[in-house]
Amino acid sequence: MFNKILIANRGEIAIRIIRACKEMGIKTVAVYSKIDEESVHVHMADEAICIGPAQSRKSYLNIDNIITAALLTESEAIHPGYGFLSEDSRLVDACISNGIKFIGPYKEHIEKMGNKLEARKTMIEAGVHVVPGSENSTNKAEEALKIAKEIGFPVMVKAASGGGGRGMRIVHTKEEFVDKFNMAKSEASIAFNDDSMYVEKFIENPRHIEFQILADSYGDIIHLGERDCSIQRRNQKVLEEAPCIVINHELRNKMGEMALRAAKAVGYVSAGTIEFLLDKYNNFYFIEMNTRIQVEHPITEMITGIDLIKEQIKIGYGEKLYITQDQIKINGHAIECRINAEDATENFRPSPGQIEGYFAPGGYGVRVDSHIYNGYTIPPTYDSMIGKLIVWGKDRNEAISRMKRALDEIVVTGVKTNIDFQKQILDNESFLINNIDTSFIEREIFNNK
Amino acid sequence: MFNKILIANRGEIAIRIIRACKEMGIKTVAVYSKIDEESVHVHMADEAICIGPAQSRKSYLNIDNIITAALLTESEAIHPGYGFLSEDSRLVDACISNGIKFIGPYKEHIEKMGNKLEARKTMIEAGVHVVPGSENSTNKAEEALKIAKEIGFPVMVKAASGGGGRGMRIVHTKEEFVDKFNMAKSEASIAFNDDSMYVEKFIENPRHIEFQILADSYGDIIHLGERDCSIQRRNQKVLEEAPCIVINHELRNKMGEMALRAAKAVGYVSAGTIEFLLDKYNNFYFIEMNTRIQVEHPITEMITGIDLIKEQIKIGYGEKLYITQDQIKINGHAIECRINAEDATENFRPSPGQIEGYFAPGGYGVRVDSHIYNGYTIPPTYDSMIGKLIVWGKDRNEAISRMKRALDEIVVTGVKTNIDFQKQILDNESFLINNIDTSFIEREIFNNK
Repeated sequence: MFNKILIANRGEIAIRIIRACKEMGIKTVAVYSKIDEESVHVHMADEAICIGPAQSRKSYLNIDNIITAALLTESEAIHPGYGFLSEDSRLVDACISNGIKFIGPYKEHIEKMGNKLEARKTMIEAGVHVVPGSENSTNKAEEALKIAKEIGFPVMVKAASGGGGRGMRIVHTKEEFVDKFNMAKSEASIAFNDDSMYVEKFIENPRHIEFQILADSYGDIIHLGERDCSIQRRNQKVLEEAPCIVINHELRNKMGEMALRAAKAVGYVSAGTIEFLLDKYNNFYFIEMNTRIQVEHPITEMITGIDLIKEQIKIGYGEKLYITQDQIKINGHAIECRINAEDATENFRPSPGQIEGYFAPGGYGVRVDSHIYNGYTIPPTYDSMIGKLIVWGKDRNEAISRMKRALDEIVVTGVKTNIDFQKQILDNESFLINNIDTSFIEREIFNNK
Repeated sequence: MFNKILIANRGEIAIRIIRACKEMGIKTVAVYSKIDEESVHVHMADEAICIGPAQSRKSYLNIDNIITAALLTESEAIHPGYGFLSEDSRLVDACISNGIKFIGPYKEHIEKMGNKLEARKTMIEAGVHVVPGSENSTNKAEEALKIAKEIGFPVMVKAASGGGGRGMRIVHTKEEFVDKFNMAKSEASIAFNDDSMYVEKFIENPRHIEFQILADSYGDIIHLGERDCSIQRRNQKVLEEAPCIVINHELRNKMGEMALRAAKAVGYVSAGTIEFLLDKYNNFYFIEMNTRIQVEHPITEMITGIDLIKEQIKIGYGEKLYITQDQIKINGHAIECRINAEDATENFRPSPGQIEGYFAPGGYGVRVDSHIYNGYTIPPTYDSMIGKLIVWGKDRNEAISRMKRALDEIVVTGVKTNIDFQKQILDNESFLINNIDTSFIEREIFNNK
């Protein structure tokens, strides 16, 4: 096994990876920006190296500095976490040319799945259901409009290099098409430095269902069931659960098989996620693959008993998967609430600053993945997520009551948080009867029917 | 279900019970002594009532005050937790005469199992293996010596009303018998106000194995597998694990059946624990039954998925058990470390005082049951246990590596703790290969061979 791994990330995911390494007997190197000097990941790792000032592009996105830190500390591998450089094939290249293992997929997996339109094409060729839409990208509104008319409204315009909900617009009529297309295009151009767009049929009120997969470098591949991530605000996940209780055994097998087919289509290796939209008639459509570990991976761990970060590291080292598909048993129900330092009453504006008081919830079935502590100062520079509250229950009802209890227990003072917002979701009647889809928050919480 | 429950306890177990109640939608009433005013259980409950000054006998052992608090708050039931009044049948009596449900067994179960010699007799009649020994109690050393000679040395002298390791002595030769008998007797007399003693064969280097049982008031009874509590210091449990991996399926069934027989012998109702000694030839002997929830109950929860406090409350309300024996599946491995504020370098002297810094460990598989927080002052009045660190792993090795990681993470400053002592246990070679018995700590950690 690796002797030492450098973690090219910060916050809770850096801690998550350090914890897995410690349990595996692997030494860890933390990297940090100047503003993160007092972060827990810095103290928890065996070594820590400052890689630059606060701005991400000068530190957590600075490939040269990260590689230098790895070489200086004789780290044999780099784990990128999520976000930052986790889906940047240039880091994979830099690792290879410096004799460092990248814990994640190969360069070509990232590139093939990173371009959403190319991924679509690969999926169509492999016989994976995709949402009906464009075959090619375009940056011309008129050309796209023609396709939209063929598909039939409503449609979704999407950035070919997109992700995380940016560069996307729903268009309901041909009259509003050109304006919305151009808005999405200019957003894409800024965010991804690529203005190529495509058009898809808009699936109404779908669930966002994603399958966790694990694939080793010997062609073995399994899925670990699904996560229901329908509770989103502006295409950002807020609360996730696993399993999705409207998916029966037969549909789970069908979607799982399709997820495996999607990953096999690119010869995928490592942990990854296949995202689908599931409509109310149980039709499902591939939307994208995330070629990294995801924020919401813990809920899959809670119901399968498998430590995904450890598996990812073992695969990265070149080990064979020791688990077979029929050994994956789903046990109980898990929910994750993302805890963000943001002001829900002020349009979810980030609320950085010093945490004056912190009490972590505990007890049976409660897991806290967080990097905060009493007196910690949340910098204004990065993501506003300050932790993840994860619960397990023997069924969905127990998980819900446990999450409500844990949300009542957690105390974070000094900054604004979305804790009350999460409680609102958990108290909602439609949520309780599992009548949810991706427009749940808009419809049920914001009352925008 | 109950509308409101009063919790006649403090510290982590009071919080544990409040958490279960919250998840069940039951209102809670905390009671507290004056010194516990700033305790978490007081803040976490829906209502809180001061029941007297710090001294236990004036507050947490004060039946009148507790009953008054229950009546004042219109609590329908009292949960006693462990310790304090949990095995005092006078509280059961007081509950009954005031129309309050006692969440626990009936008065006769407590009394029959509380007198260790009477319990022995009941077990012998029911065909449960007991350690060879006295049929009757005595407070006369000469009489006891006669029995000891019949059984053969080494023997154990025990207080008939004993428990928690008090009023007990191992005697290796007839020469030292009278002195040790009298020492144990005077300890028993002080601790239990009862100097009646009995003699048992001393089982050399046994494991302490206990079975968790749940029995409803309709005659349904199940066991939830065993806990290995061999890691003890002076007969006090320090670290517990479940399952015991030297117990195979066949032996588990055999011991489990015997545990059920023991509980059925008194018509037991509620959660309870049957304790056995298991020798290296897989002979096992009933030693006692605990007619309450135990400190170490969480490890059983972690491997069975069953919330024991909820089940106990449901049984107390009169519900039927909904789980059958064949539905109990053991999943993975769990370990609990008791975290005590004590100075291991000063003969484990309690170390009360203010906690200056506290960082709770977290992440996958880690559960914290504790009542401490930053700035909390541990009173000198009560037990030195300040929390329980519980981990789950897919197997014993993963659980051990996770516990070591969690013990590295936890920070408690301002008072002395046994955290380093726990680490010593987890690093011990014999522990790692599961070569443990009740003399493990003496032999392996203190090097008293």
